[in-house]
Amino acid sequence: MPKLRVHNFSLSFDGYAAGPNQTLDDPIGAGGHRVHDWMFATKAISDLYGDGTGHAGLDNDFVLDGDRNIGATIMGRNMFGPIRGDWPNDDWRGWWGAEPPYHHPVFVLTHHARASFEQGETTFHFTDEPIEAVLDRAFEAADGRDVRLGGGASTVRQDLAAGLIDELHLATSPVLLGAGEPLFQGLGPLPRYEITRFVPSQAVVHTVLTRK
Amino acid sequence: MPKLRVHNFSLSFDGYAAGPNQTLDDPIGAGGHRVHDWMFATKAISDLYGDGTGHAGLDNDFVLDGDRNIGATIMGRNMFGPIRGDWPNDDWRGWWGAEPPYHHPVFVLTHHARASFEQGETTFHFTDEPIEAVLDRAFEAADGRDVRLGGGASTVRQDLAAGLIDELHLATSPVLLGAGEPLFQGLGPLPRYEITRFVPSQAVVHTVLTRK
Repeated sequence: MPKLRVHNFSLSFDGYAAGPNQTLDDPIGAGGHRVHDWMFATKAISDLYGDGTGHAGLDNDFVLDGDRNIGATIMGRNMFGPIRGDWPNDDWRGWWGAEPPYHHPVFVLTHHARASFEQGETTFHFTDEPIEAVLDRAFEAADGRDVRLGGGASTVRQDLAAGLIDELHLATSPVLLGAGEPLFQGLGPLPRYEITRFVPSQAVVHTVLTRK
Repeated sequence: MPKLRVHNFSLSFDGYAAGPNQTLDDPIGAGGHRVHDWMFATKAISDLYGDGTGHAGLDNDFVLDGDRNIGATIMGRNMFGPIRGDWPNDDWRGWWGAEPPYHHPVFVLTHHARASFEQGETTFHFTDEPIEAVLDRAFEAADGRDVRLGGGASTVRQDLAAGLIDELHLATSPVLLGAGEPLFQGLGPLPRYEITRFVPSQAVVHTVLTRK
């Protein structure tokens, strides 16, 4: 059975996926970039977005694992770009650049309708259907491969509470944000999930939650 | 300068120091014991409270570190025992047994007055003075050595927010509680603190927050 998987979801030590006071200029909030720094030190991400001096190793393996056998991606709108509310026009094509790193259909959850478009080898679809319907479409598009849920925090929270996620990989950094977008706060017990991996690297602790 | 230190403060992966539904029979709440299991696997705690089959190593070193150069301890009432409200009588002498592991003055924070008493080499005092006044008394009693703050979560939260703690050692276990007594939730930014150690063992991740 194809799975719904979350990978490389970064958290601060005090449990926030993004810092407070998110703005257009600072879309992951005050200090929020610090929970993502570990990824930019990996070979995979450094080769794509940095100066190519990143490292192989455990962190890099986890990053690469996130692309293995994925046929479609679902993401909350804030993962597509920083614009809130109605789309002023169709010029903004997401902050993933001319060749987004997906190479498969991406479903963007938004209440603001927009026509699908292709960018490089990636097709973006915009939908306000219920998550279960979006999942059906994504699994169909993935054609036997798994579907990746890209975030952000509120999307992951909802799908975790609903028991829809099969595998959730978190990377916890030694960073205190103090406020922002929490993942677990107020979520309540998750009786269907257990921690199946808890593996430190030099930079972060990798934790995998698996649905029983 | 003598310091106020917290050691071996155990947290679940989702940030709770104790589980939900605390009762007299289950004083650390549903599942709460699972965040403390790592300590009972150490040589130090196993020799004191278990069958003596605990292990040396990193976790044990952290446990032992908690007793180094401590001259007095402050603890919330729930760390002394499970009784809430007025003391029915003076029979209950805490759940630390005939020879409590302190061997120095212990100040128990409670709104319910009670006479000091000695138990083994430990003297328990009960006080509802403001934390700053209790700290003064504890530093005086410690006579040049450090003071340990024993918990629980609400006591540590208050003292952390007030910037009174010099060093806070946390041990995070790969356990999901889903609810209970949070440490960081709602605490807000802690600009005076930074993470100075982030060290995994086989069982937990040890994190140390230090006041700048």
